[in-house]
Amino acid sequence: MYSLTVRDHFMIAHSFRGETFGPAQRLHGATYIVDVTFRREALDADGVVVDIGLAADQLKGVLADLNYRNLDDEPAFAGRNTTTEALAREIFDRLVRAVHGGALGDGARGVASLKVTLRESHVAWGSFEGPV
Amino acid sequence: MYSLTVRDHFMIAHSFRGETFGPAQRLHGATYIVDVTFRREALDADGVVVDIGLAADQLKGVLADLNYRNLDDEPAFAGRNTTTEALAREIFDRLVRAVHGGALGDGARGVASLKVTLRESHVAWGSFEGPV
Amino acid sequence: MYSLTVRDHFMIAHSFRGETFGPAQRLHGATYIVDVTFRREALDADGVVVDIGLAADQLKGVLADLNYRNLDDEPAFAGRNTTTEALAREIFDRLVRAVHGGALGDGARGVASLKVTLRESHVAWGSFEGPV
Amino acid sequence: MYSLTVRDHFMIAHSFRGETFGPAQRLHGATYIVDVTFRREALDADGVVVDIGLAADQLKGVLADLNYRNLDDEPAFAGRNTTTEALAREIFDRLVRAVHGGALGDGARGVASLKVTLRESHVAWGSFEGPV
Amino acid sequence: MYSLTVRDHFMIAHSFRGETFGPAQRLHGATYIVDVTFRREALDADGVVVDIGLAADQLKGVLADLNYRNLDDEPAFAGRNTTTEALAREIFDRLVRAVHGGALGDGARGVASLKVTLRESHVAWGSFEGPV
Amino acid sequence: MYSLTVRDHFMIAHSFRGETFGPAQRLHGATYIVDVTFRREALDADGVVVDIGLAADQLKGVLADLNYRNLDDEPAFAGRNTTTEALAREIFDRLVRAVHGGALGDGARGVASLKVTLRESHVAWGSFEGPV
Repeated sequence: MYSLTVRDHFMIAHSFRGETFGPAQRLHGATYIVDVTFRREALDADGVVVDIGLAADQLKGVLADLNYRNLDDEPAFAGRNTTTEALAREIFDRLVRAVHGGALGDGARGVASLKVTLRESHVAWGSFEGPV
Repeated sequence: MYSLTVRDHFMIAHSFRGETFGPAQRLHGATYIVDVTFRREALDADGVVVDIGLAADQLKGVLADLNYRNLDDEPAFAGRNTTTEALAREIFDRLVRAVHGGALGDGARGVASLKVTLRESHVAWGSFEGPV
Repeated sequence: MYSLTVRDHFMIAHSFRGETFGPAQRLHGATYIVDVTFRREALDADGVVVDIGLAADQLKGVLADLNYRNLDDEPAFAGRNTTTEALAREIFDRLVRAVHGGALGDGARGVASLKVTLRESHVAWGSFEGPV
Repeated sequence: MYSLTVRDHFMIAHSFRGETFGPAQRLHGATYIVDVTFRREALDADGVVVDIGLAADQLKGVLADLNYRNLDDEPAFAGRNTTTEALAREIFDRLVRAVHGGALGDGARGVASLKVTLRESHVAWGSFEGPV
Repeated sequence: MYSLTVRDHFMIAHSFRGETFGPAQRLHGATYIVDVTFRREALDADGVVVDIGLAADQLKGVLADLNYRNLDDEPAFAGRNTTTEALAREIFDRLVRAVHGGALGDGARGVASLKVTLRESHVAWGSFEGPV
Repeated sequence: MYSLTVRDHFMIAHSFRGETFGPAQRLHGATYIVDVTFRREALDADGVVVDIGLAADQLKGVLADLNYRNLDDEPAFAGRNTTTEALAREIFDRLVRAVHGGALGDGARGVASLKVTLRESHVAWGSFEGPV
């Protein structure tokens, strides 16, 4: 199995609902360093998993819709806690749509699965992975 | 599949038995940076894999029983080499017991598997992973 | 010159005023990974720059007053942009007061200077350093 | 499942063929930081996945055949793009041969799979993994 | 003293002249991860060392003139070894010109010094620093 | 001012005397990741701060005298706490002797200062720097 990973980041404000979250129920924020891994069984004709330039551009585009925002005000997350794990899933879903829509090129249709990891600090990170 | 990882560390002395280990047969020591990954198929009602505060506390508790010790003197490791891989397994076992015992909360009972990685330097690390 | 550095982190929401900041004028947030370096010419009687346990505790205490907060609502920052550089200075000032007040132990009164670095992402960080 | 990983690096020149690669069609180069993970179900009699000294030596040997070279001139890569993913596969193949040939010791014959990851920068990396 | 650092990278081919360099006399290459630190005594009116967006853009521009190239063919380096240290100096010189030319904004004219660090691997890096 | 840094590591056992050290008074151990920075005003005739191969070899040699040892048994440290800061100083002293003795080549006699940093974990490190 081959993989290719690209990294970017975004910075948001949010708060959590539920006693579990303690002081994180207050409005605070995070920098998320995002690693997206594309996996497939065989390389395409160019010898790559996916065009790394398109992959980086699409990731930047997905993150631009979240960056420098208060996620508590975003309709996409209404009624949900925007935990690291849940954000990883949301970014996964948006990137899967980009792959299906052809935004990563025709070659990328051979991508079998994606993993999205969000690092919230040097001591904690979360991820979601699944088939494309 | 969702995952959440927390990081901590511990510092121990030990020695290895077996010619394979060369100079590491002498009493020496290591800092182990420990990454514990909790994995599950669906998030709990709060939108998390596991309560990150409880996860960090439980990891700290497990490591406190090893930290600042000479593992050659610990009955738990009598007759065994405390290699990076073997220590990863031991920490895995102790954390699985914590999950089963409810120490990570009722929600954590949905955790499907754990991975424990111990980084012994910037150029070497070992891990153990398995179902909970 | 000897130095000792300890690392911790905090997570906040804030916004910036001024066209320079572009989209960062919106309410957003950041994780800051904080490295505090204590410097002195000679070690104390124990052979250390400062008691590392006290240093870590004092840093955690200073960050606890900022952590999980919206800095736009904090009186301490009224009328000021809470940029990475400015926050590094604020944390420096609070730690200098802790050193002067004896919170890091009598030995720490020999500390000559401090440097506080805040990493806001994997591609940007800021710092403030000066005499104690 | 147990794993052990060792890290090393190599530095090469190369160029890519195909419009996909844009400016990377020009002769340029890269430092690749290489992580090789050995995986197996049970530890050997010494309590390790593989002799870490032999693993590091074999990796260094495999990389020595690539290091400080222009890969465009290497017959092994004639007619192929030496992308990060393709190089990960090549190093995987060479290490599998080393395992099968006994170069990592008899114990290493119990290794079930390998993963080779090449980091080409702080924001991009590729890998290949498969059974031994 | 305040500082702000931004990170980027570039990938080049080159060779060295001189027996000191051993196998690095052959045509090979490197990824350089570049950290540029801007330092000044007081923050500007916005509360920053330098506009981080302009700093990142100017660094990207300077690196674009080197990226994906064989430095052995670049007239700017004729008759010189493009060592990590020498490249750090060259990038320093180009950024100082950018500061003097106003490309980082009027506020950046208060920058007192720059440090440019090039990381060539996980185990080696070089830098040049000096007044602006 | 130019600089060049090389990284290596060593693994030791030791214990500390003094109530300040709490549980670290017990025999334990550490991995130290060691960064040595060589600084000088002008590059040598080859365009380098110091021959990076000789620098790495000398560092490895100095660390080999400490590696895989119980520092409590080493006469060189009798009556002293082998804290991170104190070890940084000891390695500094040994490397300065190597520079003066010509072990880093004649060119290295132009090195003005050294900085030795020992990372004991992902959250703590110490250093010593001074003129050569």
